[in-house]
Order: sequence, then structure tokens, then C-alpha cells
Amino acid sequence: MTTVELSGSVLARELRAKLAETAAALTTAGVPPRLAVVVATEDESSAWYVRALAKAAAKTGIDCDVVDLGATAEPAEIRTKLAALSADPAVHGIILQTPLPPDAKAEELAASISPEKDVDGASPLSLGRISAGLPAFAPATAAAVLAVLDYYEVPLAGRHAVVVGRSTVVGKPAAQLLLARNATVTVCHSRTRDLGEQTRTADVLVVAAGRSRMITGEHVRPGAVVVDVGTNPGEDGGLVGDVDAESVRGKASALTPVPGGVGPVTTALLLSHTVGSASRGAP
Amino acid sequence: MTTVELSGSVLARELRAKLAETAAALTTAGVPPRLAVVVATEDESSAWYVRALAKAAAKTGIDCDVVDLGATAEPAEIRTKLAALSADPAVHGIILQTPLPPDAKAEELAASISPEKDVDGASPLSLGRISAGLPAFAPATAAAVLAVLDYYEVPLAGRHAVVVGRSTVVGKPAAQLLLARNATVTVCHSRTRDLGEQTRTADVLVVAAGRSRMITGEHVRPGAVVVDVGTNPGEDGGLVGDVDAESVRGKASALTPVPGGVGPVTTALLLSHTVGSASRGAP
Repeated sequence: MTTVELSGSVLARELRAKLAETAAALTTAGVPPRLAVVVATEDESSAWYVRALAKAAAKTGIDCDVVDLGATAEPAEIRTKLAALSADPAVHGIILQTPLPPDAKAEELAASISPEKDVDGASPLSLGRISAGLPAFAPATAAAVLAVLDYYEVPLAGRHAVVVGRSTVVGKPAAQLLLARNATVTVCHSRTRDLGEQTRTADVLVVAAGRSRMITGEHVRPGAVVVDVGTNPGEDGGLVGDVDAESVRGKASALTPVPGGVGPVTTALLLSHTVGSASRGAP
Repeated sequence: MTTVELSGSVLARELRAKLAETAAALTTAGVPPRLAVVVATEDESSAWYVRALAKAAAKTGIDCDVVDLGATAEPAEIRTKLAALSADPAVHGIILQTPLPPDAKAEELAASISPEKDVDGASPLSLGRISAGLPAFAPATAAAVLAVLDYYEVPLAGRHAVVVGRSTVVGKPAAQLLLARNATVTVCHSRTRDLGEQTRTADVLVVAAGRSRMITGEHVRPGAVVVDVGTNPGEDGGLVGDVDAESVRGKASALTPVPGGVGPVTTALLLSHTVGSASRGAP
């Protein structure tokens, strides 16, 4: 079987082109879209990600403020900053970057982001609203999984989607979004007995476990569509997915590459959510 | 195979006995636990349920106010009442009874219940907090499913739990709670293709679909534990489960009866949550 590559770069480019137009119109109307990224870490890969995000924002005509509170920031300080940004009418999107200092819990702190600016769906209220079928921004990575599947017209209703990973930022919200699209959804994780038995039942397999190349050909049902959310550091400094592409190729009907799959779409959707938030505030 | 009956009545009785002691102590301390049930319907089975709840509360030493706004209540009126009860320090638990008038959406209105009094986990914030692993009251029916499984020491970690039904009040939160207990979790629903193929993979099968006797012996893997959340009106005025007990008996290793299974535990947990909320306010 030929495995089709589901590129996210193509989709991300299309999304950004549309966004640039809207962002320009908003700026002309006196509402320049603005994203604030709150950082409290010296983590290298986080810094790399924030730089890439700021660059993508700039190219799209979106202001991006990186608010660096330092790796020793107290939770109260982070909370106060998130609340101040929530109250600032010039800011339309707020992201709380992880990792955080050891005594800070992302889910707790994110509750200080006002829901209409919570462009990465990090606050418990956003999660709950998605689960209840109410409007809210979904975590951008989870939304990107669905955006890629939709762009390539992968049918979901009535089909069996298996999600590997149950993080609050990807696995759980991706499962909710797949369920809302009428897929039958299974969530697997590190405690799942016989992972292969579960994953081989998937029509659509979404892998967000954070372990390099853990999913191999023997985990995949022939013809399945595989979405690789993993972005693990590779030995040569590049990115390695959670899926062993080499062994899955020829067995899956389609596979997202790493890099160039879910990642660029995630960035584009964060910007899209920010522009969406700014549009609501436009005259 | 002998199918063990997992009675909820026994557990509910134990829970209520403990609660009555705590409620009496709180009342002596000047904090009589109080539950408010907001009703905006003339639905018969809702009225039956509210009467049963008020009676159980009274027997446990918990005050229960039924606030009947009438079947023509406007959403704004319901919202104002929920906010007033949330602000009333004498009230410790608030339930918004369904069904609601056609233009009222329970998930939206429940956002007006303050999270610490949301004893039936109805607000999107409670749902999101549960999903994120933060403390919150779970919807009582979903919590009752777990309470019954725990009482009968059914192992969950690493086992495959299949939930049939994806309502915001039962199916979805039950799936979250099972996941938090390290089960591998599948959610099925009306759009699932070949339901039996999915349900036969379950070690633990939780049925909350709201369709009389829809799960039969052929849906059940030999030895599975089956939890029946259904409470459908029977022809003779009694309650009928979602599981066809007759055909499942002899195949499942254990089954909750209807009535007398999840139902009484749900009521006991609503009261337990109310007492828990009152305890936080006690001197």
C-alpha cells in the first residue's frame, strides 16, 4: 500500500495567507491583533518554539509580545501577569508557555487567562466548554489534528479513532473533538495493557505520547490514517515523531510527517485564534 | 457463569448513615447543610425524582429547598436565581433540574452555579477541572458509577472500559473518571458502527445511552462487569435499564440492577457532595 504524506505545511501556508489579509484589515480598522506569550523557563526547546511563533506572527502581521518572567517566577507573579494581560484591551490572545517552575501548575494558572483570550485552550473552563459542546478555543495542537484530517477529507463519523496519550493539552481535547465529530473514540496511555491490540482497531490513529518512534508498523491496521503529534528531540538536533515512519510507511494509508505535519498547523491555528479573538473586538 | 448482582442500595445506605452523622454535627455547629433544587419543568419523572431526593435529604438531616420557577421560566430568570443561590451563604449545594424550557441550555445556565456549590458537576468549569485532574465535584451519576465499581473492588487500572453514551452528564464525565483511574477508555454512541464489536472488547462496560434494554448478551464479553446507568420508564410504571438483564445474566461476571444499582448511589453522592461543601464552610 502506498502511504500518502499528509503535509501540514501546505495547509499552514494557506491558513496564514488568509490570516494575513484579515490581520491587515483589522490593523487598518485600528485593532492590530496582538498575542502575548508568557514565559517562565529557560528551557531551550521552549525558547526555540517561542521564537518560531513570534516569527510566524510577524510574517502574518500579528504583534507578538514575549513576556519573560524568568525561570524563578512565583506562581502568584505569573497569575498576576495573566490577569493583567486578560484585562488589557490591546491584547487578544494569551499563551502560557510550558514548562513552568516546579511549584507552578499550568492548569491552575491558566484559569487566570480570560476565556475569550485563551487561544491555546489552556484554561479548565475552555476544556469544559469544549467537552460540553459550547463555543471555546480548543488547545491548538488538538485543533490542528482535526484541521489536518479535515483538510485531507478523512472521514470521521462512525469510524474508530484511537488516541495514544492523555495529556490535558493534546490527548484529552483531541479525543473530545473527535467525539464531537461522531467518531467512536478510544484513549490509550502508558498504563494500557497490550497497546498494539488497541491501536490495531483504529481507522484513525492519533499519537501524542511524547516518546520517540514508539508506534511501529505492528501497531497499525493496514489502511489506517496515522497522525503523529510527537515532537521529540532527535540525536542530530532535529525533531523526531512518536511514530516510526519507516516501519509504518507501506502499511498506513496516510501519515503526517514530522516535522511538517501537525506542528506548522498548530502555529497557524494559534495565530488564527488570536485574529478570531481580535475580530470580536473590532468595530 | 454466575452473574453477581452489584447492589447500589447497600452502598447508598452505608453512605447515608455516615452522612447523617456529619450532617448532625454540622447542624450542631450552626451550619445546617442545605441543598437547593431549581426546577423549571412540569415533567412527571423529574417531579418524582425531586420528591425522592428531598425525602432522602430529610432522612439524612439535610435541608432541601425546591425552588420551582415554573415551566415557562425565562433563561435569564433561571440564571438570576442560580446566581442568588450561589451568593447565599446558607446554601451549600445547588442542582439545576432537567428538562428545562426549550430555549434554555443546561450547560450554559449551569455556568451561573458557583463551582464550590456545583454538587452535580453541571457547570462547564467543573467538567473542565475534572478533565484537567483538578479538584471539582463530578456529575453525581458519573461519580456513582465509579463508587459502585470501587465498593465491589472491580480493578480498573490497565483494563479496558467501554462507555456507551456520550452525554455531558454521564457518558463523558464517566469516561474522564475511568481514564483518571488508568483504565483504557472507549466511548461509543448512536453513531458507532457495529456497537457489539466495540462493547465485546470491554472488561468493564458502562451503559448510559437512555434506551431500554439495548445492550443484550451478545454485546457482552464473557466475564465482563456491566454497569447499567439506564432509568427508562417501563410499561408498568417501573424503571427499566439500558441493559437486558435477563440475556446478560450468566454471561457477565457482575451486573448492577435497575432499580437499586447506580440510582440510589447517585442520590447519596449528591447529598455527600452537599455535606462536603457545607463542611468547608463550617467553623
